[in-house]
Amino acid sequence: MTDPVAHRTATTPAQDHWLAHQFGLALPVLQAPMAGVQDHRLALAVAQAGGLGALPAAMLSPAALEAELTAFRAASSAPLNVNFFCHVPPEPDAAAQTRWLSALQPYFREWDVDPHSIDTGPGRMPFTEASADLLAAFRPEVVSFHFGLPAPHLLAQVRTWGARVVASATTVDEARWLQDHGADAIIAQGLEAGGHRGHFLSDDLTRQAGLFTLLPQVARAVCVPVIAAGGIATPQSVAAARELGAQAVQVGTAYLLCPEATTRPVHRAALSGAEAHHTALTRLLSGRPARGLWNRLMQDLQPMNDVAPAFPLATNSLVPLRAAAEQAGRSDFSPLWAGQAAALCQQMPAADLTRLLGAGWQ
Amino acid sequence: MTDPVAHRTATTPAQDHWLAHQFGLALPVLQAPMAGVQDHRLALAVAQAGGLGALPAAMLSPAALEAELTAFRAASSAPLNVNFFCHVPPEPDAAAQTRWLSALQPYFREWDVDPHSIDTGPGRMPFTEASADLLAAFRPEVVSFHFGLPAPHLLAQVRTWGARVVASATTVDEARWLQDHGADAIIAQGLEAGGHRGHFLSDDLTRQAGLFTLLPQVARAVCVPVIAAGGIATPQSVAAARELGAQAVQVGTAYLLCPEATTRPVHRAALSGAEAHHTALTRLLSGRPARGLWNRLMQDLQPMNDVAPAFPLATNSLVPLRAAAEQAGRSDFSPLWAGQAAALCQQMPAADLTRLLGAGWQ
Repeated sequence: MTDPVAHRTATTPAQDHWLAHQFGLALPVLQAPMAGVQDHRLALAVAQAGGLGALPAAMLSPAALEAELTAFRAASSAPLNVNFFCHVPPEPDAAAQTRWLSALQPYFREWDVDPHSIDTGPGRMPFTEASADLLAAFRPEVVSFHFGLPAPHLLAQVRTWGARVVASATTVDEARWLQDHGADAIIAQGLEAGGHRGHFLSDDLTRQAGLFTLLPQVARAVCVPVIAAGGIATPQSVAAARELGAQAVQVGTAYLLCPEATTRPVHRAALSGAEAHHTALTRLLSGRPARGLWNRLMQDLQPMNDVAPAFPLATNSLVPLRAAAEQAGRSDFSPLWAGQAAALCQQMPAADLTRLLGAGWQ
Repeated sequence: MTDPVAHRTATTPAQDHWLAHQFGLALPVLQAPMAGVQDHRLALAVAQAGGLGALPAAMLSPAALEAELTAFRAASSAPLNVNFFCHVPPEPDAAAQTRWLSALQPYFREWDVDPHSIDTGPGRMPFTEASADLLAAFRPEVVSFHFGLPAPHLLAQVRTWGARVVASATTVDEARWLQDHGADAIIAQGLEAGGHRGHFLSDDLTRQAGLFTLLPQVARAVCVPVIAAGGIATPQSVAAARELGAQAVQVGTAYLLCPEATTRPVHRAALSGAEAHHTALTRLLSGRPARGLWNRLMQDLQPMNDVAPAFPLATNSLVPLRAAAEQAGRSDFSPLWAGQAAALCQQMPAADLTRLLGAGWQ
């Protein structure tokens, strides 16, 4: 396969970034894959502006993922990033589930929900051979992973069509590990980032650092390109990330108010109000620490309460509560994923936002 | 009093910062006041290079502070920042003290320390009328505060000699409060920062943000100049802070290995080793959350354990343990204050470091 890097000629400062070197893209902006709040339409809008669009696969059935990939490929010849989780699904734990249901009992009563109606299935699936087989038909240019990397034979499958492998590091140790295990580029995920923390070598959250210090330390520690993520929502923050050693940026939260996102009404309302100033890491909503806007469940139970079962098992019991509350216009049990730049979100088309952010690189 | 701002003429980019506008200083670098690890010698070295030196007053007796001020003024005509805490000292709480001594009992036995020998005095003093009277003789150009601002009549005393008032904000709300209560400039203290968190409106640590998102949001929210602090240790991070809206930077941790700092041997050793990659917020060492390198006490008791009494009462009981352990070359009970950029510390003269950092502004 021909390596686009081999065709590099003299670049202007605006073209001096990983996505230009790798794919000839105009802008150094990766749209962060955000399960539950976007589909191919957001990815297409970003691609149209010259950034790298992404599809989050973790919460999609194989059929749904295939439909998303088909829709993107039908509409665009731009490169695409498909993102997977690579956690080890936990063993079912009946005692933990009972504790969790017991903690939620007052809410089941309040919202007239029958806890026995709850699906206790896996919720979020990790990357598997079946995932790789499905991808092979679409040959996505980038395959990105959260919570480490999949097993070597799975990574080898992805490489058969020349995909670039990208993964998230939350510490210098994780960045070195990812480089040693074959990542082509590393996302330095600052503590500011919305959604799930990507840590995989240590559960000790005190080891997680803000982007201001994580990014330069990761950039010094590895030879592969580093993509900055966490708190990037303005052209100025793109420029700052470049100063700190990034070769591209990954942006999630800033896209949540775009019309192309599928962000739900309670989530959009929270992002547009005073609540946008307060996020927290919580394990209540999935079982793993993830950053979202403060809501009633966090207030009542404390966000890091270990009464929630292991990832991703905490999620299912909340689904009917969330549905009932959202119908009443309330976000009490909703994952309002957002980073610490949530208050900087703007309502604008995703292509315009991509161009605005990209202009910060120069 | 003549306002230096009125004399501003055309500036080069290198001069476009708060310390140039305000005092005609060459470099936009404030040396962070760091109680316990520095005296006037560090402040003088920074001043010599064209930055703003600082004296931390919180742990000094009036006589010791007077001696420091005298030494600085005798050696330099450069402007000076003197820093104070403005906490409300807690009521003594015998039960809380008993719990704390009980938690420390195994260590007292291990190090053969008699807990009854411990001074239970205040440890750290807040800013008072006596402080203001003492300062008046030296007319420091900047008086900075941590944990909010002192009472209006105390602030008025400081203003009689034209001092600029600077204070730390850890949230957008705190920045607005400080502006409304008379701060002339605001330090946006990112979660990366070493030493005590400056929060004063809410104890909820989930409200504390990384510098990447705090700085641009504070810069948008207030009209007064914003000084970036937390994780700034390289010229690149100075440039990044400027991109994010800072009008100067405050740097602490990066100075800890300078020969002019009084950083103790166990602290220098930890900053120079693998431990430098792991800091945490802890309330064990003083009673308030402060960031330092991970050590045995944090490991044993968990860093945010509420068994430590209210600030600053936790400190005294640790003093004899710390002294005994440090004599044995161990940092088990020492406050190894450091920010998340600790691993980027370099051994170099403070004046050289100040110039290196200042070069990042252009």
